[in-house]
Amino acid sequence: MSTTPNIAVIGGGSWATAIVKMLTENIEKVHWYMRSVYAVEHLKRHEHNPNYLSDVEFDINQLHLSNDINEIVSAADILIFAIPSAFLKSELDNLTQSLEGKTIFSAIKGIVPESSLIVGEHFNKFYNIDFENIGVITGPCHAEEVALERLSYLTIACSDEEKAKMLAGFLSSEYIKTKTSDDIVGTEYAAVLKNIYAIAAGIAHGLGYGDNFQSVLMSNAIREMKKFIKKVHKMKRNINDSAYLGDLLVTGYSVFSRNRMFGNMIGKGYTVKSAQMEMSMIAEGYYATDSAYKINKERKAKTPIINAVYAILYEGKNPKKTFKKLADKLD
Amino acid sequence: MSTTPNIAVIGGGSWATAIVKMLTENIEKVHWYMRSVYAVEHLKRHEHNPNYLSDVEFDINQLHLSNDINEIVSAADILIFAIPSAFLKSELDNLTQSLEGKTIFSAIKGIVPESSLIVGEHFNKFYNIDFENIGVITGPCHAEEVALERLSYLTIACSDEEKAKMLAGFLSSEYIKTKTSDDIVGTEYAAVLKNIYAIAAGIAHGLGYGDNFQSVLMSNAIREMKKFIKKVHKMKRNINDSAYLGDLLVTGYSVFSRNRMFGNMIGKGYTVKSAQMEMSMIAEGYYATDSAYKINKERKAKTPIINAVYAILYEGKNPKKTFKKLADKLD
Repeated sequence: MSTTPNIAVIGGGSWATAIVKMLTENIEKVHWYMRSVYAVEHLKRHEHNPNYLSDVEFDINQLHLSNDINEIVSAADILIFAIPSAFLKSELDNLTQSLEGKTIFSAIKGIVPESSLIVGEHFNKFYNIDFENIGVITGPCHAEEVALERLSYLTIACSDEEKAKMLAGFLSSEYIKTKTSDDIVGTEYAAVLKNIYAIAAGIAHGLGYGDNFQSVLMSNAIREMKKFIKKVHKMKRNINDSAYLGDLLVTGYSVFSRNRMFGNMIGKGYTVKSAQMEMSMIAEGYYATDSAYKINKERKAKTPIINAVYAILYEGKNPKKTFKKLADKLD
Repeated sequence: MSTTPNIAVIGGGSWATAIVKMLTENIEKVHWYMRSVYAVEHLKRHEHNPNYLSDVEFDINQLHLSNDINEIVSAADILIFAIPSAFLKSELDNLTQSLEGKTIFSAIKGIVPESSLIVGEHFNKFYNIDFENIGVITGPCHAEEVALERLSYLTIACSDEEKAKMLAGFLSSEYIKTKTSDDIVGTEYAAVLKNIYAIAAGIAHGLGYGDNFQSVLMSNAIREMKKFIKKVHKMKRNINDSAYLGDLLVTGYSVFSRNRMFGNMIGKGYTVKSAQMEMSMIAEGYYATDSAYKINKERKAKTPIINAVYAILYEGKNPKKTFKKLADKLD
């Protein structure tokens, strides 16, 4: 194996595009799969992604682009998945290439709806990937700010520290600082749960709650997240590290977050269905709420915020009344 | 003593006005001192404060108003101080009335410049007030949202739990939820330190750092705050409670915070002096930075953010270079 492994990015959205940009700062050739034939052709001709972060210019010589997932998977040792969790299974169903011996990093912030598992667990269960070969790339990081080369911090988690360090090295640059972690379960759950809390923040905003309430909500959310993750995977972690608290804040306080926007519409009186239709795509946090609620039913962490969002999204409960009750449980 | 003690609010600003509003929901008569003769006369005639939260209408029969601090202090058993820390000493210098037997609550979020002490310590040292009779009222709470009756949460801290509970009861209403705490030192330091971190957030914004960096800054700030407060007063506390993390967030993410605005001007290239002149008043965090830096010189908690703000505000260091170095220390 050469010193530079072959790294592939799977996905054509803004986060995938941002990750390819980061890698091209350090690596001569990045393998990049995206589903859209049109996007691949446009990239080849115009050297930017037509749909996402289109201001980012690539050197086409640095890219091995294809809309054939098997071509890209077979070319790489390390696969970074950055597609919405709702599409992961259908993409993987197209795989004829084996994943044996490959290292999988998830940059997906969601739960796989078909298996109700976080991405690492899904690969472990259905593709026999050893947890040693599974990792997580997590923020706090809006892709749009990577495009602008604004200083951002990533956490690369893998139980094999060497692999985490290696990938961290390939993602680091003038505008990207990285740290490593061995908490693959905790960082991935944090990335998932924060979307539920962003929906909660949006609902609160839509209902007319202000900044004072928002700060109390976030302060309760991080305590709730800590309890939830501890039940799922107990280990020593500082929940106030960037990968947990930072990631919660960048999403919970972002007016651009799709999850927060979705929640805002619910708070303003849209039904779940009409909010989803209006947004033309389903916010990751929608699925995450269902899965987290069900996972926690067995583990029984105290999660009043997740419960409230679940009651509104899945049980048709009235947002105003539900949040009035929730407010009594916060402190 | 009747069941309702006589409570006085000292101060004529927005936070003092908000506290008087909260109290009038529960108490028949609130004693209210403000320095300005004009404001007192205006309030008596028009039933609102002409300078702050002027949409809040009072029932004048519920107010005992005076611009004579001795008249108000002598009428009350419980004094709530809500004036800028920079003016506390000069107001107290006018006192001829004894404070003996009174309970003092600080709603001041700053360090007394003349003594470099937090308000509770200042009263203890210079007025012999027992710590049992000293308390703190803390947010997260923008006064403007209280005026709008948006749901807000307060923490009332006092080492005498009965006193904390009693005052909490008088502040609670449809739109104010309260909790009590026995951590008077920690909650007061948190309220002070958050202003320094709000200045840091402002500087970062002024320098062009984005939301990704801001979330990392806040994630580091809460860890730094925890270390600082632990050195000053070690006790069991959850730094993610609303009085600490919530208060940090409501200020650090507020575009209306004077401290954040002050920092923003520094980041944009104003000198400290010109930023202060432009703002026509000095942000609390300016003094807090000096005091916190000096207090920490002996205690030696790791506080890279406070050190960076100090270097910029007091040592004339270049904001851009200082934040570039700070960014290397964050994670």
